[in-house]
Amino acid sequence: MIFARFLASADVARVLDERAFVQAMLDVEAGLARAAARAGAIPAAAAGPIAAACDARDDAFDVDALVAEGARAGSLAIPLVKRLTAAVARRDAAAASFVHWGATSQDVLDTAQVLVARRALALVDRDLAALVAGLLALADRHGGAPVLARTLLQPAQVTSLDFKLAAWIAPLVRAQARLHTAGARALQLQLGGAVGTRAAMGAHGDAIVAALAEALALRAPEAAWHVQRDEWVGLGCELGLVAGSLGKVAKDVSLMAQGEVAELAEPSGAGRGGSSAMPHKRNPVGSMVALAAALRAPQHVAALLAAMPQAHERGLGDWQAELAEFGPLVAAVHGALAALVATVDGLHVDTARMARNIEATQGLVFAEALALRLADRLGKPAAQARVEALSRRAVDESRTLADVARAELGDAIPAGELAALFDPARAAAHAGALARRQLDTLAEAADALRRAAPWRSWLPPTEEAG
Amino acid sequence: MIFARFLASADVARVLDERAFVQAMLDVEAGLARAAARAGAIPAAAAGPIAAACDARDDAFDVDALVAEGARAGSLAIPLVKRLTAAVARRDAAAASFVHWGATSQDVLDTAQVLVARRALALVDRDLAALVAGLLALADRHGGAPVLARTLLQPAQVTSLDFKLAAWIAPLVRAQARLHTAGARALQLQLGGAVGTRAAMGAHGDAIVAALAEALALRAPEAAWHVQRDEWVGLGCELGLVAGSLGKVAKDVSLMAQGEVAELAEPSGAGRGGSSAMPHKRNPVGSMVALAAALRAPQHVAALLAAMPQAHERGLGDWQAELAEFGPLVAAVHGALAALVATVDGLHVDTARMARNIEATQGLVFAEALALRLADRLGKPAAQARVEALSRRAVDESRTLADVARAELGDAIPAGELAALFDPARAAAHAGALARRQLDTLAEAADALRRAAPWRSWLPPTEEAG
Amino acid sequence: MIFARFLASADVARVLDERAFVQAMLDVEAGLARAAARAGAIPAAAAGPIAAACDARDDAFDVDALVAEGARAGSLAIPLVKRLTAAVARRDAAAASFVHWGATSQDVLDTAQVLVARRALALVDRDLAALVAGLLALADRHGGAPVLARTLLQPAQVTSLDFKLAAWIAPLVRAQARLHTAGARALQLQLGGAVGTRAAMGAHGDAIVAALAEALALRAPEAAWHVQRDEWVGLGCELGLVAGSLGKVAKDVSLMAQGEVAELAEPSGAGRGGSSAMPHKRNPVGSMVALAAALRAPQHVAALLAAMPQAHERGLGDWQAELAEFGPLVAAVHGALAALVATVDGLHVDTARMARNIEATQGLVFAEALALRLADRLGKPAAQARVEALSRRAVDESRTLADVARAELGDAIPAGELAALFDPARAAAHAGALARRQLDTLAEAADALRRAAPWRSWLPPTEEAG
Amino acid sequence: MIFARFLASADVARVLDERAFVQAMLDVEAGLARAAARAGAIPAAAAGPIAAACDARDDAFDVDALVAEGARAGSLAIPLVKRLTAAVARRDAAAASFVHWGATSQDVLDTAQVLVARRALALVDRDLAALVAGLLALADRHGGAPVLARTLLQPAQVTSLDFKLAAWIAPLVRAQARLHTAGARALQLQLGGAVGTRAAMGAHGDAIVAALAEALALRAPEAAWHVQRDEWVGLGCELGLVAGSLGKVAKDVSLMAQGEVAELAEPSGAGRGGSSAMPHKRNPVGSMVALAAALRAPQHVAALLAAMPQAHERGLGDWQAELAEFGPLVAAVHGALAALVATVDGLHVDTARMARNIEATQGLVFAEALALRLADRLGKPAAQARVEALSRRAVDESRTLADVARAELGDAIPAGELAALFDPARAAAHAGALARRQLDTLAEAADALRRAAPWRSWLPPTEEAG
Repeated sequence: MIFARFLASADVARVLDERAFVQAMLDVEAGLARAAARAGAIPAAAAGPIAAACDARDDAFDVDALVAEGARAGSLAIPLVKRLTAAVARRDAAAASFVHWGATSQDVLDTAQVLVARRALALVDRDLAALVAGLLALADRHGGAPVLARTLLQPAQVTSLDFKLAAWIAPLVRAQARLHTAGARALQLQLGGAVGTRAAMGAHGDAIVAALAEALALRAPEAAWHVQRDEWVGLGCELGLVAGSLGKVAKDVSLMAQGEVAELAEPSGAGRGGSSAMPHKRNPVGSMVALAAALRAPQHVAALLAAMPQAHERGLGDWQAELAEFGPLVAAVHGALAALVATVDGLHVDTARMARNIEATQGLVFAEALALRLADRLGKPAAQARVEALSRRAVDESRTLADVARAELGDAIPAGELAALFDPARAAAHAGALARRQLDTLAEAADALRRAAPWRSWLPPTEEAG
Repeated sequence: MIFARFLASADVARVLDERAFVQAMLDVEAGLARAAARAGAIPAAAAGPIAAACDARDDAFDVDALVAEGARAGSLAIPLVKRLTAAVARRDAAAASFVHWGATSQDVLDTAQVLVARRALALVDRDLAALVAGLLALADRHGGAPVLARTLLQPAQVTSLDFKLAAWIAPLVRAQARLHTAGARALQLQLGGAVGTRAAMGAHGDAIVAALAEALALRAPEAAWHVQRDEWVGLGCELGLVAGSLGKVAKDVSLMAQGEVAELAEPSGAGRGGSSAMPHKRNPVGSMVALAAALRAPQHVAALLAAMPQAHERGLGDWQAELAEFGPLVAAVHGALAALVATVDGLHVDTARMARNIEATQGLVFAEALALRLADRLGKPAAQARVEALSRRAVDESRTLADVARAELGDAIPAGELAALFDPARAAAHAGALARRQLDTLAEAADALRRAAPWRSWLPPTEEAG
Repeated sequence: MIFARFLASADVARVLDERAFVQAMLDVEAGLARAAARAGAIPAAAAGPIAAACDARDDAFDVDALVAEGARAGSLAIPLVKRLTAAVARRDAAAASFVHWGATSQDVLDTAQVLVARRALALVDRDLAALVAGLLALADRHGGAPVLARTLLQPAQVTSLDFKLAAWIAPLVRAQARLHTAGARALQLQLGGAVGTRAAMGAHGDAIVAALAEALALRAPEAAWHVQRDEWVGLGCELGLVAGSLGKVAKDVSLMAQGEVAELAEPSGAGRGGSSAMPHKRNPVGSMVALAAALRAPQHVAALLAAMPQAHERGLGDWQAELAEFGPLVAAVHGALAALVATVDGLHVDTARMARNIEATQGLVFAEALALRLADRLGKPAAQARVEALSRRAVDESRTLADVARAELGDAIPAGELAALFDPARAAAHAGALARRQLDTLAEAADALRRAAPWRSWLPPTEEAG
Repeated sequence: MIFARFLASADVARVLDERAFVQAMLDVEAGLARAAARAGAIPAAAAGPIAAACDARDDAFDVDALVAEGARAGSLAIPLVKRLTAAVARRDAAAASFVHWGATSQDVLDTAQVLVARRALALVDRDLAALVAGLLALADRHGGAPVLARTLLQPAQVTSLDFKLAAWIAPLVRAQARLHTAGARALQLQLGGAVGTRAAMGAHGDAIVAALAEALALRAPEAAWHVQRDEWVGLGCELGLVAGSLGKVAKDVSLMAQGEVAELAEPSGAGRGGSSAMPHKRNPVGSMVALAAALRAPQHVAALLAAMPQAHERGLGDWQAELAEFGPLVAAVHGALAALVATVDGLHVDTARMARNIEATQGLVFAEALALRLADRLGKPAAQARVEALSRRAVDESRTLADVARAELGDAIPAGELAALFDPARAAAHAGALARRQLDTLAEAADALRRAAPWRSWLPPTEEAG
């Protein structure tokens, strides 16, 4: 379905490709054969022919045929195993007996899903780091600039741009850290056999699990998690949180890029963000993709959560629903992330316009500061009432609040002090100091996370360059 | 993503195919050119070359390229129009100026989505009729059979199989009727130009809308619905309701097919419902697919609803999210429907086991009838207390409630009457009579809907046979 | 929970009050006794004492006690019936036997929910009419004013305010009509007895259903809908659509009320929309409430849909979840509606600012019109390229596009014609004409719906005044 | 709304009570005054009168009035602060100026929500421990018993009861651990002032934050989290995961408690799980409550996630939606937990019936074991085909597979070995050994978590006893 792909990135679409999933299933089968051989559960000679047959480019593993037969069988793994068995038999009849040894459909499908998810997580991790780096660089370049703080979509006070940026960055850094933790839990081997007990493996169970987990570089779980979905769905929740935090950045960028605000502009350039009907438009297409993800991801997470109560030793319908919802979730999240990386890397920041927008509020955004100053003398309620009256007059007479205040309060507050109350730079200074302190901490944390990058080796070479 | 396809039907997957969507966009462009020519808005000679170029098999419309360029542009329609313009120019330079005349991206994308949805709805409509017919046939064959009614997953009383079937069928018949209504509203042309006002079409607007609506056999809307998504999302809601009603059937089938209940069994046969690890298993794979859809569809509906508040004249992110969620919704729904059609067509009904399951309750499911009979003499509270005591004794002594009642109440209730109270056929008769009345009405309604079949002509020939 | 109430209206909170629900259950029991007596199923003398005891103000029906006992019993109706039976017995021992005659818990709970929902729908219907009337009045007052049309949060072209208003109104009028239809289906009696077959009522079933439906002024259903939830959940879907369409209005109002846009302002006044920390702020609190509802309602709808596959003759957990999610849904929707009625009734419309905002785009929003005009001579691609170049120059040189065009295209386009291309009033005229046509139709439709107002008699007197 | 309360526990309903929330807001105000005084930001004498006035039992803080005024103001904190200021002024006019010093509405509301959530989490933590303990005790009592393992709702193989129990317990233990982590992050002070910068606190910011965090025993955040909702929503996700894992237990209990399965039964007793119409029924009401929560919680989590992209420095509508959805989420989760604690504490386990249910499969659940044994000689494909044929014959001839195998394979497999293949105890042994190993680890982990119990001191005394 073309729109899901339109909102994904090319990188993640490649990782989630149907053929890539089939190959991941075959990787599990190959690994299982080798692990079982290593554990002495099957003849050493069987592993080679099985592994050799595990190539998704073989016509035997035609995706359309697998889907059609899988739909009848109720599992994609059933035709895969059947076809793999036949393919092995063509090479080595004896080895064919040992295909899929001791495993069940869900072992193959869950583990393949884990392998694919790891690659997708590697992309998410790489690009969270890139986005954080991009935003930190913006803070370095423009951070101190005063800018309107807005609450409930209304100008409220003056803050500094780096304070805004820190509020974007901090959740992303935390998200990356939490993903490392959640991934370390959830990226685990599934291998339980028919009902999770590994009964068919007899005494070889522990050895095979250990060997296969090592071969696939996955965590060996305490037990099969066929119907213990909490760690897996927990990973989905983290992805949902990433989408939410990216959506926050996109919401702000798109609001600040409105024509009437114009403090930010997404990068333009050949083919980017134009309009088919309106030649002058520069649409915030990166934000668009991230906002779409922020809207869709919660629903995909809800589907994963709703699928958790899976009956008995393996569920009916719920597990299948979960399988189908995970891919779109991670695709949407990485799509959003890639779009924002491109957006931030080329974001136009107009600090002059930020200043003009502050000015255009006629000083009303300094009203709280003025009220606070007056409160020392009048008490808070009286000070607030006074400032409200002055604000109303400023609005009614199209003057600045500073003007009105100078006229009305000139004897109560020294001129220099009054001017300072209405100085954007001074108003932003407090926020800026807080922000710089936090940005330093965030930069360090980001650095540590980048060094940790637990799934870097799963990035295909071309994508690491991308 | 392979699991979404695994849970869809082959028919609907074909309808929702990426290339099919591109062709639908091109159909809109071709139709628009002809309509504009007919309205005198563009030269008559321009329409032919434009329509001729609108062929998705042309390399110009390579899906991967469209997706890649569309992602940069923020809309799939932008590269499509650009490439179409070039393709037309290769044929007729003058005509190229009139490609996409007066339209905006969203006009093309929304209308293409509508065209694709109509085909998918045709499948849904066809197969709702088939499923209803299959269930009505089951009722004809086995309807009168007594079967346990169960509430809160506990045996409760005896009902008749056709009463159960009527409760499955009625929502499906209503769903089909409601889909006809919702489809008639939602399957409408989108043509508003850049901001919905058709300003670029000047005085030709009404005529072009009328001509294009006629050509595409779509409703001409009162106004552009770029940001009025209620009718479209309303259609999505109806699909969600279908999924829910199908899920109810699947829930019941799967529960009645449990090994310990065994009143129903899904059809088996070559490659259907087997297990990779357990040779004896016959899994309810049709129910599985429908249960998965019932779990996923609500989330997709929620995404559509959540995307409704689209800003100003065209939204940012929300509309794109809506586009991406509609396909998976209709795919899941038709997947469920096709799976249940196959399930019902071959469903094994074991009325003897139904009788044995009633028997196995030791007559406790007749307790309410007994209490009602006693209430005439004792009043309801005393009667209920008495029957509870008798029921407990039956359980404790592993006897049937009929036995206990005969021993304890033999002088109060004549033997024949007592026997009748414990007769499954008599207990089912009341439900059966109600059901037959309702099934007659449903059969008539189903017939009328089948005759109406508003989208039959949009079924591809091969699929009508399928 | 205080926030749900904060986001509801006082009216709907009163309708959904816990004690009001208990009274609704008692109304069902009273009605049932009278209907059964009328049908000759229970002694005529029993109905009076039962009905007399059905008063929720009686200590017997203490809500806390009912909730506590209901939680143990698994149903709120069980303790209610028990306590009602005792209350009747205190009046008339014989009558006590006939309490809840032939009914099951779910009959009482579903019907009570329907009665409560009808009152809530009456409020929704009343206030949809009020909101539409308010918006139509706005269109009368300010409709022709030119205003920026914005797409993807960017200024795009010029439209007329009434075109925007029509796009808000049309979905609300349709929603009201659809609610009438959906309500007529869903507001039906539930009366099926233990397993839906009305077996305990014997031959009296039809007569009791007819009598009770008439007494409660509810539709008599074709069959019990214990596990056929489509019509009820369908009503929930319509409420979800209302929330979405209200959210669209709120989104636009809040965006247009931004300090930097300032085309609209929500009404202020004593205690409305202030800020605890910032004395000058006027927050868009009506939009806030509606946006919150638009965010929450989709999830509540999803819960209703997800609960549809209810097992066998009565579900376990799913039905209970559905009961719990309906109230919050309708509360959120009416809260949003009431908030927007108050917002629109007092909305400040600044047409002068709308004009200034158009001006501030330097004429770029007329670029498409210019390109269209040039396309006649140059062909579309060349015209677009030319206008893009002119637009860029306008931006770079801080001139208006009109200026640049006059200088560059003065010989190609006559001055008067060029001026007309950049005239907001002229640009808005086309949209205005379309809008007025549509607004006339909408006004008529709204009038017809207001006359229909199917649930007006269920509005408590005080609320009709409100 | 009565059903939400019906599905909550009395404990959590008390914690989430409206008045309790108002008191929590007042606790924040009192703490803030003291902290500001301690930091030297306000006169030391002001704190006492402010703290003294912070009593929700005072008529000044009538909930209905706060809700009504809050709805107009757009925030519950605004009327609260106004009324508190007046209440303080009645005591000490000078102190009134220092009410709510430097804070904004959201500071008070978010922190109050955190305080309330901590109490709810304390209940969740306590009862997760209780549920785990109950299940571990069940495993001690009945663990070794063979029981059917079922996949896709079909009997599959034989496992041991403790293997099933371990699969219930492990996710609960992990959930408790993850809640400790997520709670430690999310239970943090909110104190940022109007736009998060603490500008109004001047140089006192850090000191006040530290003092107030210490006073409320909350974490002091790195920065205000007004629009950084990831940690808070992350806590919501963990609650959603708890609901899912509880739902899994409830799903299994309810399926195993079906009349036709009867391996488990929920405790009965005075008023528990009866039916208003059917005297003999024992409904699984604990499972019912947990299943309802598992269905509702994902939607509430989705609402929290969807609300994350909050604009600028404080959101409009989204934050309010988040506030409204958190309470119902935690209420549903604790309701489910309390219901399952009661269910498990008194769960009837029928190991004899488990044995009979194994027997009733005619040995087909041992087919995989037989096939594995044969595979040594025949190879897997031939062995499976052979066993499928034998299974079919067993079904057709109503014999056990053991019988058929003895007759057909008697010469290939020694009698004793064949008998062993069909011995439930032997079949369960492997699973039992795995389970015991895992249960030991889980018991230790549970013990450590119980000792950690981070929020124990927030349990009201009466509830700790409950």
